[in-house]
Amino acid sequence: MPGSSFGHTFRITTAGESHGVGNVVIIDGVPPGIPFSEDDVQPDLDRRRPGQSALVTQRQEADKAQILSGVFEGKTTGTPIAILVLNEDQRSKDYSDISEKYRPGHADYTFDAKFGFRDYRGGGRSSVRESIARVAGGSLAKKILTSHGIRVVSWVSQVGSVIWDAPDPEAVTLEQVEAHPTRCPDPDSAEKMAALIKQLRSEADSIGGAAMICASGVPAGLGEPVFDKVKADLAKAMLSIPAVTGFEYGVGFRAASMRGSDNNDLFIRKDGATHTATNNHGGMLGGITSGEPIVFRCAVKPTSSLAREQATVNRAGEETSILTRGRHDPCLLPRFSPIAEAMTALVLCDHLLRWRAQCPAQYQAAYPGGGRC
Amino acid sequence: MPGSSFGHTFRITTAGESHGVGNVVIIDGVPPGIPFSEDDVQPDLDRRRPGQSALVTQRQEADKAQILSGVFEGKTTGTPIAILVLNEDQRSKDYSDISEKYRPGHADYTFDAKFGFRDYRGGGRSSVRESIARVAGGSLAKKILTSHGIRVVSWVSQVGSVIWDAPDPEAVTLEQVEAHPTRCPDPDSAEKMAALIKQLRSEADSIGGAAMICASGVPAGLGEPVFDKVKADLAKAMLSIPAVTGFEYGVGFRAASMRGSDNNDLFIRKDGATHTATNNHGGMLGGITSGEPIVFRCAVKPTSSLAREQATVNRAGEETSILTRGRHDPCLLPRFSPIAEAMTALVLCDHLLRWRAQCPAQYQAAYPGGGRC
Amino acid sequence: MPGSSFGHTFRITTAGESHGVGNVVIIDGVPPGIPFSEDDVQPDLDRRRPGQSALVTQRQEADKAQILSGVFEGKTTGTPIAILVLNEDQRSKDYSDISEKYRPGHADYTFDAKFGFRDYRGGGRSSVRESIARVAGGSLAKKILTSHGIRVVSWVSQVGSVIWDAPDPEAVTLEQVEAHPTRCPDPDSAEKMAALIKQLRSEADSIGGAAMICASGVPAGLGEPVFDKVKADLAKAMLSIPAVTGFEYGVGFRAASMRGSDNNDLFIRKDGATHTATNNHGGMLGGITSGEPIVFRCAVKPTSSLAREQATVNRAGEETSILTRGRHDPCLLPRFSPIAEAMTALVLCDHLLRWRAQCPAQYQAAYPGGGRC
Amino acid sequence: MPGSSFGHTFRITTAGESHGVGNVVIIDGVPPGIPFSEDDVQPDLDRRRPGQSALVTQRQEADKAQILSGVFEGKTTGTPIAILVLNEDQRSKDYSDISEKYRPGHADYTFDAKFGFRDYRGGGRSSVRESIARVAGGSLAKKILTSHGIRVVSWVSQVGSVIWDAPDPEAVTLEQVEAHPTRCPDPDSAEKMAALIKQLRSEADSIGGAAMICASGVPAGLGEPVFDKVKADLAKAMLSIPAVTGFEYGVGFRAASMRGSDNNDLFIRKDGATHTATNNHGGMLGGITSGEPIVFRCAVKPTSSLAREQATVNRAGEETSILTRGRHDPCLLPRFSPIAEAMTALVLCDHLLRWRAQCPAQYQAAYPGGGRC
Repeated sequence: MPGSSFGHTFRITTAGESHGVGNVVIIDGVPPGIPFSEDDVQPDLDRRRPGQSALVTQRQEADKAQILSGVFEGKTTGTPIAILVLNEDQRSKDYSDISEKYRPGHADYTFDAKFGFRDYRGGGRSSVRESIARVAGGSLAKKILTSHGIRVVSWVSQVGSVIWDAPDPEAVTLEQVEAHPTRCPDPDSAEKMAALIKQLRSEADSIGGAAMICASGVPAGLGEPVFDKVKADLAKAMLSIPAVTGFEYGVGFRAASMRGSDNNDLFIRKDGATHTATNNHGGMLGGITSGEPIVFRCAVKPTSSLAREQATVNRAGEETSILTRGRHDPCLLPRFSPIAEAMTALVLCDHLLRWRAQCPAQYQAAYPGGGRC
Repeated sequence: MPGSSFGHTFRITTAGESHGVGNVVIIDGVPPGIPFSEDDVQPDLDRRRPGQSALVTQRQEADKAQILSGVFEGKTTGTPIAILVLNEDQRSKDYSDISEKYRPGHADYTFDAKFGFRDYRGGGRSSVRESIARVAGGSLAKKILTSHGIRVVSWVSQVGSVIWDAPDPEAVTLEQVEAHPTRCPDPDSAEKMAALIKQLRSEADSIGGAAMICASGVPAGLGEPVFDKVKADLAKAMLSIPAVTGFEYGVGFRAASMRGSDNNDLFIRKDGATHTATNNHGGMLGGITSGEPIVFRCAVKPTSSLAREQATVNRAGEETSILTRGRHDPCLLPRFSPIAEAMTALVLCDHLLRWRAQCPAQYQAAYPGGGRC
Repeated sequence: MPGSSFGHTFRITTAGESHGVGNVVIIDGVPPGIPFSEDDVQPDLDRRRPGQSALVTQRQEADKAQILSGVFEGKTTGTPIAILVLNEDQRSKDYSDISEKYRPGHADYTFDAKFGFRDYRGGGRSSVRESIARVAGGSLAKKILTSHGIRVVSWVSQVGSVIWDAPDPEAVTLEQVEAHPTRCPDPDSAEKMAALIKQLRSEADSIGGAAMICASGVPAGLGEPVFDKVKADLAKAMLSIPAVTGFEYGVGFRAASMRGSDNNDLFIRKDGATHTATNNHGGMLGGITSGEPIVFRCAVKPTSSLAREQATVNRAGEETSILTRGRHDPCLLPRFSPIAEAMTALVLCDHLLRWRAQCPAQYQAAYPGGGRC
Repeated sequence: MPGSSFGHTFRITTAGESHGVGNVVIIDGVPPGIPFSEDDVQPDLDRRRPGQSALVTQRQEADKAQILSGVFEGKTTGTPIAILVLNEDQRSKDYSDISEKYRPGHADYTFDAKFGFRDYRGGGRSSVRESIARVAGGSLAKKILTSHGIRVVSWVSQVGSVIWDAPDPEAVTLEQVEAHPTRCPDPDSAEKMAALIKQLRSEADSIGGAAMICASGVPAGLGEPVFDKVKADLAKAMLSIPAVTGFEYGVGFRAASMRGSDNNDLFIRKDGATHTATNNHGGMLGGITSGEPIVFRCAVKPTSSLAREQATVNRAGEETSILTRGRHDPCLLPRFSPIAEAMTALVLCDHLLRWRAQCPAQYQAAYPGGGRC
């Protein structure tokens, strides 16, 4: 039942909903001595923030992080870190219409079925607003990964019919991603995506898309052989994000039509180390990292909130219609990157710590000399 | 680190590898009083078994289940159930070639990187043989689901270029699935798939595919709002299975190119109950079940073991080549159904028990009168 | 590693230290629809608060609870509840003396050994101030227990040489406990304890004691047969509280000198139900509740902070001495009751929810008619 | 609900009951490369075995361990280790008398209340026979501790009125413990205890006792600051053992009557390291190990099974009497040492691995040069 925690050895626990007082995350299992402050959290929160560009919802939230515990004299103490982000834009609103009706595509009906009632102000706990806590937690995971030479980048690869395939996922940089408000690193595709998003907004509609995530610098050896494979934990991490409808890594669904002789990545030597000639396996074999870049893709459905009348049913079981007012993202992708990066960082950080608990000799061989978080 | 357990309230813990003494599962959190014996386990083990048809590996293993604990006078006692399946076909073999080389596509290299050495007899813990324990555990989960009117069926929807889209996933029956050794319910497609598999074997190659899973009769209300969404737990469950490279539910990756106005499933009334007119959401909204059938798809890569010479690298870091002898599945799909069903049943059973812990009134409203496991 | 969570199905996760911004608890697995507000939390926080009487530390902290999430229109929603209590009395202080020295009896040295450095302002995370989060979480557990007819009361049974044995633990009421600032229900003993505490303070010394806890109205059937016995979870709960050095239930350590024929509690019939004639077993047999009152005792060591010079060692490994200034409890017992009750309530609430997940028929037989949280 | 697992990072999961096929343990989170075979398990199983001396039950069970997985070429692979111990002495027996009656002091009534029925052959899952799995799991934990210079010894300090206080707990050796079948290291006390046990058996009665446990060589720094204090995990570990009714560490319950100035252990320098002058704190401060020996004591109640008529109640709710036949331990203490040592080793091993996950620099400083498990 307690489904608000994620991670085994490096773990976040979150609370908060779209129209409550705020969102909070407790990060537990934190290595001591890591320089950490609100300045490490805010950049990713700003990338996730509503109102950051013309392409996203125009709600205005500062989303300022406040660290409540676990940091002393600028460093982590090893005790749990609580971070609070207050909600600000809690407009007084008339919910009489929405409170008794189920919005299509939203979790209104299922929350009602589960709990017997629901918090009808916005999406409550099902709102993507809860991802604030994930992003805040992920910011610390990223710092730990950075000290181990691991880099996680996510970008938008598709909005509707506009698709951009990165020729070399490992080469995509955060700077490229941040260069355009769509977060597609290819300028031409980015412009087309932006135009499509604006068009959909003008039509009171929304559009889906897809994102790529690449983690490079990951050592070979992370992941557990059976249930806690890295690919399994990443799939869970991604599908736990609102609106994500699919996950594939490496060749993914294309594997279904491939032959083994084409799909197998042959081992080779390069620069004095063992590598694979290709990376169809997306950096994971048997669910354990291979040292090649981890590459995966997520599908994100179009925003369910539409500024148009839609048929639905109310709590009393009567057919009716609903018009969702408010300021919504016409496409979820531009704000998706920091969330996907955070969840990826949390998974990898957890497995990194699990590895050094179980296999200290292998960890130390991969990271000789100490000095890392 | 302990990655050999799955589930929160209804939990399995497994051990065993391809060439050890046997595979064992401990099922914990079992409701008492459920009629249960080896006869409930064996049918699914037989569906998973090597040697069951001409399409699969010709290794011969009886895979007989033995219940060691937790059942008394034919009923579960509420204490943990241990089930043991001994390995039989442990051919004495010369491993001198394989023990120092990394098989392409396998976990040999990554296990070595993680642990510093590996069990080189077959795949060890990375072999699909560990799924015996999952299937044995899933057989009890299925019984609990059945007593709640929930049915889980998985079938093969694709082998290489041969694709069969079920017109109505909810209508596919276990009998249809079992009618052909491919486990594709459509006779024509099944024949084509079988021919393709035989061809690939004759070419010393292998082929990938995809499977569909449908769970019907699931009440609205299962799943946790944030990390333990049902879609997230299903994604983890599926990606934890060897060779699975992708997961999508409902419209899945097609959502990336859809508009919200097309993707949203409108709520309607049917037979005096609230339903959705369409099921693009694959039975889950906000990660919580909606009462519509849960429908998802998995990609499965082609078998990595090929009876042909492949380039590779050995432990000493020298380039070499390897020829994997042995009896392998030319396609993993025909034996995939019982594994996918078991993992799906484990996820749903876990959430069913979590629901009645947290929301007993809603559970009792959905299942009035008691009498269920 | 993540050691800041407690409970399996009803779980709290806490963060905060004595001199940080505040203490926070996230309660997860909350049943929906329970009336809950800050007014339910504050009374127990006030019982735990410094400065509440002349017998305790004279630090002044209002310890006001603020609910951040999980409650809507006065009721729990089923999503996690975060409660924040800000720290107020963070006196600016000169720590130059204490920061490099290890206070005897405190966790200064062990935190330093574990983490490589420590938060030297007060006890940091080892301060009893973290119990604020436990008490806040326990207040909701108590509400759930109350709706199931379960009552938890803790009182002071010993301060130094002054001992009071309750003739009938089940008869002790919260009102009796709260009638005197020592929280000993016996007026004469309470006066003697108070005098002893005042004397110790005047001598710049401190004194230990013991507390009793009784939970009545607990149904037979709570607890897991092996590791998660109720007695085991209670022992962990109590020993997790700072300064607790012992736990015993029922006859406890006296069992070591008893014969089986004296210790065995014979089953009898009383008022149409099965009971035991005596309660040497403290309400638990095989670690599962028997329906008799749960009765146990905890030893609490004397406060380690003393307003006198003590020999010690500093971080540089030099022998030195230390004089701990500040306002400390001369005896920890008067503020112990709400903490012990909270931890007991958390354990029982967790097992109650686990029981109804696994054994719904038995739960419903014990609580017919529904209507409980 | 799943209460059959113990430990966070080094974890055992157990199954089995007194009259089932056997007892099994799965050890997960095992470091790779540790030499391990049945020969490491059998000695402790033999110390736990029935029939080993005239002082214990005369049931005959060989209790032979069989490793099913996780070991290859004599070393742990890092994957889970399953160990099976078959039950042999399953005498065919007439249970018609006992099956409907509740044995005083046993868990018959509480299992029935919890699950709605029970396995009435012996104690089922509540029998001390389940400790076989703990001891088997603990044998591997001990090996890991040994490679870190940590030694765990438990001995009998009390049987009824015969008490032996070890003048120096750290000096007690396994050889001294094993020198006498009572497992009291003091020859005179051992003889008196043996005489008392024989007398009680002759009177068809039983007697309680107490055991001491000492872990030496433990580095400073193990344990989590709040819930997973080492003292808390040890308390849970001990109280999870059948018949244990109390736990205290260091001065324990004597702390209740002590002054702070007497109880505080002053820090001193000895042999170039920081120590405490006394060890009232039993090796743990703030729940974290201090480097001083960990010392604690457990109370064990007298065996509930008595070869005499006792009043009781049956399942139908009628008062009746019961005579428990069979071969029982007149005192549980002589067989308690290996169980207590196993649980202690499991707790310390878990915390050791958690420490090196979170604080690798501190771990490496304590264990320079590598080479440990």
